[in-house]
Amino acid sequence: WQVQKNAVTVEEVLEASLEKVVGNPVKCTGAGRTDAGVHAWGQVVNFRSQSSIPPERWGAALRPHLPDSITVRESRQVPEDFHARFSAKAKTYVYQFYCGRVMSPFYHRYACHVSYPVDRPAMAEAAAYFEGVHDFRGFCAAGTPGDNYVREIFHCGLLPDKEDGLLAVEVCGSGFLWNMVRIIAGTLLEVGAGKRRPAEIPVLLGMGDRRQSGVTLPPQGLFLMEVKYPELGQENRGFSEKIFRIK
Amino acid sequence: WQVQKNAVTVEEVLEASLEKVVGNPVKCTGAGRTDAGVHAWGQVVNFRSQSSIPPERWGAALRPHLPDSITVRESRQVPEDFHARFSAKAKTYVYQFYCGRVMSPFYHRYACHVSYPVDRPAMAEAAAYFEGVHDFRGFCAAGTPGDNYVREIFHCGLLPDKEDGLLAVEVCGSGFLWNMVRIIAGTLLEVGAGKRRPAEIPVLLGMGDRRQSGVTLPPQGLFLMEVKYPELGQENRGFSEKIFRIK
Repeated sequence: WQVQKNAVTVEEVLEASLEKVVGNPVKCTGAGRTDAGVHAWGQVVNFRSQSSIPPERWGAALRPHLPDSITVRESRQVPEDFHARFSAKAKTYVYQFYCGRVMSPFYHRYACHVSYPVDRPAMAEAAAYFEGVHDFRGFCAAGTPGDNYVREIFHCGLLPDKEDGLLAVEVCGSGFLWNMVRIIAGTLLEVGAGKRRPAEIPVLLGMGDRRQSGVTLPPQGLFLMEVKYPELGQENRGFSEKIFRIK
Repeated sequence: WQVQKNAVTVEEVLEASLEKVVGNPVKCTGAGRTDAGVHAWGQVVNFRSQSSIPPERWGAALRPHLPDSITVRESRQVPEDFHARFSAKAKTYVYQFYCGRVMSPFYHRYACHVSYPVDRPAMAEAAAYFEGVHDFRGFCAAGTPGDNYVREIFHCGLLPDKEDGLLAVEVCGSGFLWNMVRIIAGTLLEVGAGKRRPAEIPVLLGMGDRRQSGVTLPPQGLFLMEVKYPELGQENRGFSEKIFRIK
């Protein structure tokens, strides 16, 4: 998402399309600062404009200026104090694996390849231990800014298989630290491979030592699926509908 | 698949990787000459080699030399007279649609976008009319070589939905003419849109007039899923397992 030196980002391309539509530079704020290679199905972005384009028409106005790899699914007016990142109350990420002896060319940009058999019930059991309020200092990249590592995970589990070979971990929480989902998924994969027992998860959470938890998996398996703003009265969509029913 | 002027093809890349492995040029024969933009999950390729690499080890030998977008799933020795194209007794193609008001960036290379609601039962009813032995001269591109347009379709129908928004037509037959599946899918889409009735399909087959049948859909929705060689005693895999049970 975020504008960087030496790389074209989604923010940059979106801001350029907004400038084409309104005729002046527009600064966007995104809910999730997804790293290079990470995908977003449910990114939320806010910006200010004096344009006469009706709130719900920005998707249609912007799409002709965007490449096939970026789109605007919908748009609406929000309160003046809305902030895509700071107003968010929950985010849902999915980490996707492709399980098979040989990697599928159709998933090399959308999943992490797992070439050995995995123990799915053990992974599901381990995933549930992440639910609740925990200090995640052992599950974030070195150099994560800030000194508050406490986050609440509302739900962590495996999704039902949508296709042969695919395996997906869904994590919904109040907020996420840098690389947190990729490290959680990496630790769960080590459980699936039989290298760790599910009951190690609470121990790792208690230790708070990054060196003890699992590897950071590559970015291409990670998807930001949804961001929730209860005060917008937004319709529940997709993945987290069932999560909020579970809660 | 097929080597062309002014374009890098799968055949070309595969032959280059074979040359790297064995040290001399190797000519490949593919089962399906997929057009640019068309995908293959189940392409079958044969070649001759004096190499000491065991028959089942060619995948492992070639994969390190192939880009992420091309792979070798498995390899085996075949009889001297085996020909990937002429020995094939059945091929299965899938044409995939992404149905939704806004196209998903994750499917722009793997599906045809349909932005309006479609009548799936009508499409399924129409698809069944393609089954059987028919003259498909009305369902192939102008300039298709040869003068025999008769093919047998063993199965034509909609696949169960694997994900929200996806809709797939599966066609299994003895052989296919140029653009045949893309025109069948285009005609079925027109049925789904309410522009044609299912009972028009036998009329169109009887007329044999390309101008009367549906549009040729874009290549990115098309996948060659499987090629069958009964004399190899090959294990049934994936999609056509159920087709051969239906037969």
